[in-house]
Amino acid sequence: MDAVVLLSGGIDSTVSAYIARGDICSEGKLHAISFDYGQVHKKELLSASRVGNCLGVESHHLVKVLGMGILNSSLVGRGDIPTGDVEGIPSTWVPQRNSTFLALAFAYAETVGAELVYTGVNSLDYSGYPDCRPEFIESINGALNLASKQFVETGRGITIVAPLQYLTKVDIVRIGLKLGVDFSMTWSCYSGRDRACGVCPSCRIRLEAFNKLGLEDQVGYEKI
Amino acid sequence: MDAVVLLSGGIDSTVSAYIARGDICSEGKLHAISFDYGQVHKKELLSASRVGNCLGVESHHLVKVLGMGILNSSLVGRGDIPTGDVEGIPSTWVPQRNSTFLALAFAYAETVGAELVYTGVNSLDYSGYPDCRPEFIESINGALNLASKQFVETGRGITIVAPLQYLTKVDIVRIGLKLGVDFSMTWSCYSGRDRACGVCPSCRIRLEAFNKLGLEDQVGYEKI
Repeated sequence: MDAVVLLSGGIDSTVSAYIARGDICSEGKLHAISFDYGQVHKKELLSASRVGNCLGVESHHLVKVLGMGILNSSLVGRGDIPTGDVEGIPSTWVPQRNSTFLALAFAYAETVGAELVYTGVNSLDYSGYPDCRPEFIESINGALNLASKQFVETGRGITIVAPLQYLTKVDIVRIGLKLGVDFSMTWSCYSGRDRACGVCPSCRIRLEAFNKLGLEDQVGYEKI
Repeated sequence: MDAVVLLSGGIDSTVSAYIARGDICSEGKLHAISFDYGQVHKKELLSASRVGNCLGVESHHLVKVLGMGILNSSLVGRGDIPTGDVEGIPSTWVPQRNSTFLALAFAYAETVGAELVYTGVNSLDYSGYPDCRPEFIESINGALNLASKQFVETGRGITIVAPLQYLTKVDIVRIGLKLGVDFSMTWSCYSGRDRACGVCPSCRIRLEAFNKLGLEDQVGYEKI
């Protein structure tokens, strides 16, 4: 069975991709898809490329979406990325980002003949993004199959696998280490500086997990 | 009430946008969104721009998606566009095109504060594309709202309106004429030549409608 993995270059998508590699065994082909959607820095795409290389993916498809920069999100340059505690959904949320990415991942899966699409979404130690919740994943999976020629003609749909959905960040890092993930090649920080900032929501969640495990995060931080 | 209309520059999206203009009355703002996704020619985007201008849209957002050219579709350069009768879903179908476009239209709607998204999909005189069927539209509408910050925080969702869903092409042209659409500014042909080819599936459906109405299609054809 073949799979497409969504690779952002962060911890979650990387661990999800390593799980996919194990799930589909050596007979299955692993394809990766990554997105340049106008995020304020491209450093995570370099990480995604490294992870894809480490996994020996069959193909790695980069989709560029120009025009998302006008959306209300600090991740595409609208306003400041928060550095402290945030109530509610933070400004880093990008409207319909996962919907767009999953739709394009399905299109790619249908093209390369993959039956599974792996995403690293999780809904425990996360930023409260509505498009990371299990009810959304289930719903969009159904919708995308209804849009599929393959599903209409053969009844064979594509399944979204979200192996981290109910895991804490600590468990995600622990599983990643067990699977041999070199976390120094991943990038979670919302800034694109040489070293991770350590204070953005993404760094804070990541650091907390490493601290709880008593491990040093080899990615290197500016302020800790 | 404000609306975002998906404008491809063809007959359906144009008539759908004119209907939206009437539906939301003069108090409502109309925003348009169009997509450059690697379609073999860009002529339809010029048409979309003209239609937007005629409608006096508040904004017209062009999103460019680079990377869909590798998908299995003759509309993005993979294989030949059919010129005769086709059994089943034709090669012009682009996997998850409507899913991607609707996701990005929702993102735009949430950004500009629109509550409605108009699409010109229809499921009578169409090419059998699975992502034009009402069951898909209903399903993706639910999924996209589950991904929405606005919906989660306020309970106010965005509604997809597909006013042409159950209309024949003849009815669509008839309604368009009644609303003052100048069809010569629209472009349906899958080829990007100076004049429409008259033989691709899109031209054939369009021509048949004009013929049934006893009207000449002012767009101008190469071979009829």
